[in-house]
Amino acid sequence: MKIGILGTGEVGNLLGSRLIENGHQVMMGGREANNQKGLDFVNKHSSENASYGTFAAASGFGEIIFNATNGRFALDALELANTDFAGKIIIDVANPFDFTTKPPTLIPELANTNSLGESIQHNFPNAKVVKTLNTLGMALAVNPKQLNNGDHSIFISGNDESAKTRTKTLLTEFGWKIENIIDIGDITGARAMEGFLILSVRLLMSFGLPMFNIKVLKS
Amino acid sequence: MKIGILGTGEVGNLLGSRLIENGHQVMMGGREANNQKGLDFVNKHSSENASYGTFAAASGFGEIIFNATNGRFALDALELANTDFAGKIIIDVANPFDFTTKPPTLIPELANTNSLGESIQHNFPNAKVVKTLNTLGMALAVNPKQLNNGDHSIFISGNDESAKTRTKTLLTEFGWKIENIIDIGDITGARAMEGFLILSVRLLMSFGLPMFNIKVLKS
Repeated sequence: MKIGILGTGEVGNLLGSRLIENGHQVMMGGREANNQKGLDFVNKHSSENASYGTFAAASGFGEIIFNATNGRFALDALELANTDFAGKIIIDVANPFDFTTKPPTLIPELANTNSLGESIQHNFPNAKVVKTLNTLGMALAVNPKQLNNGDHSIFISGNDESAKTRTKTLLTEFGWKIENIIDIGDITGARAMEGFLILSVRLLMSFGLPMFNIKVLKS
Repeated sequence: MKIGILGTGEVGNLLGSRLIENGHQVMMGGREANNQKGLDFVNKHSSENASYGTFAAASGFGEIIFNATNGRFALDALELANTDFAGKIIIDVANPFDFTTKPPTLIPELANTNSLGESIQHNFPNAKVVKTLNTLGMALAVNPKQLNNGDHSIFISGNDESAKTRTKTLLTEFGWKIENIIDIGDITGARAMEGFLILSVRLLMSFGLPMFNIKVLKS
């Protein structure tokens, strides 16, 4: 599948590398056409499945677009792509952290009664926005078998059922068991998934390592 | 130990009954001196360890005070107690839900960069406020062995280490394993624990039953 990744940082790199490993064609998108991190990514993989370009090029290339930009600037980055994403799936993995507070909180206008996932859907109504993979470190998210034999939980939300189904397929390729992918409903579920990050940051402060996650248990 | 419980609803009843079962003296506190729910509680237990009175009476009685009031009105209820709680431990188990939104969110002024737990600490600086037990249904919280043999996680936060230690003792009496009680630091941790509720509500909507919780896993 052709996949565009917006954001050439660590999160985008982890996603891109894993997707290539799983046989997909990946274009990394950055703000500039000639960005060093995009070039590094292509050189690292030396695969015809790896390419890079601008946000606009990656958005045009992918049937599925990952938003792996810094959550604080994600809405601006998506505007820079200058496309309406009609019919495309945007998988939003970003978190709108406000790092000016200690510990970090969420950007107030994107918290509690709103979320980054919802705001992306609102600003790009022709896209099918799916929120997932944002509730744990990305190194673990793209390779969940590193913890508890892969038996832990991840969440998914979005308005379009077929988009969620296609996203779940990518998640199972990463190693997620289908029964551990918990669908919490429409895109307003992004409030819950982003709100969880406040707790996740506290756990990171307590544990001092990113290789942790939660498992939802029910009787 | 002498324990006051502010709030005579289901949460207060579950806490009070379990604490009496564990040998503590419990006074239920309500807005009115002669409140029917307080009387019902005393009649149900027919134990000299069960009593009831006003918020003020229960606050005066307890070395430890549980705030089990409706989170939306908790700060007002604590004001009605008309005490400064000097040297007392307030264990805040309430959640400041705003039920006017669907699904429920948190009261905006108590969310993200603030919390009910912090606000109680702020308004009653002589109290030792501990936040815990708010992240799962209270029926399970007071009897965790009902799920996964008691092997799941609960969180605790607060500024005073000795108050957290005493609270942990009560939690272990409920059946919590000490290694599953995760200390996430000072009372600003209440932001994280209350913020988690947005996700918890979504899980409740998906699962349709309150007997669930999370277990934190780390490698």
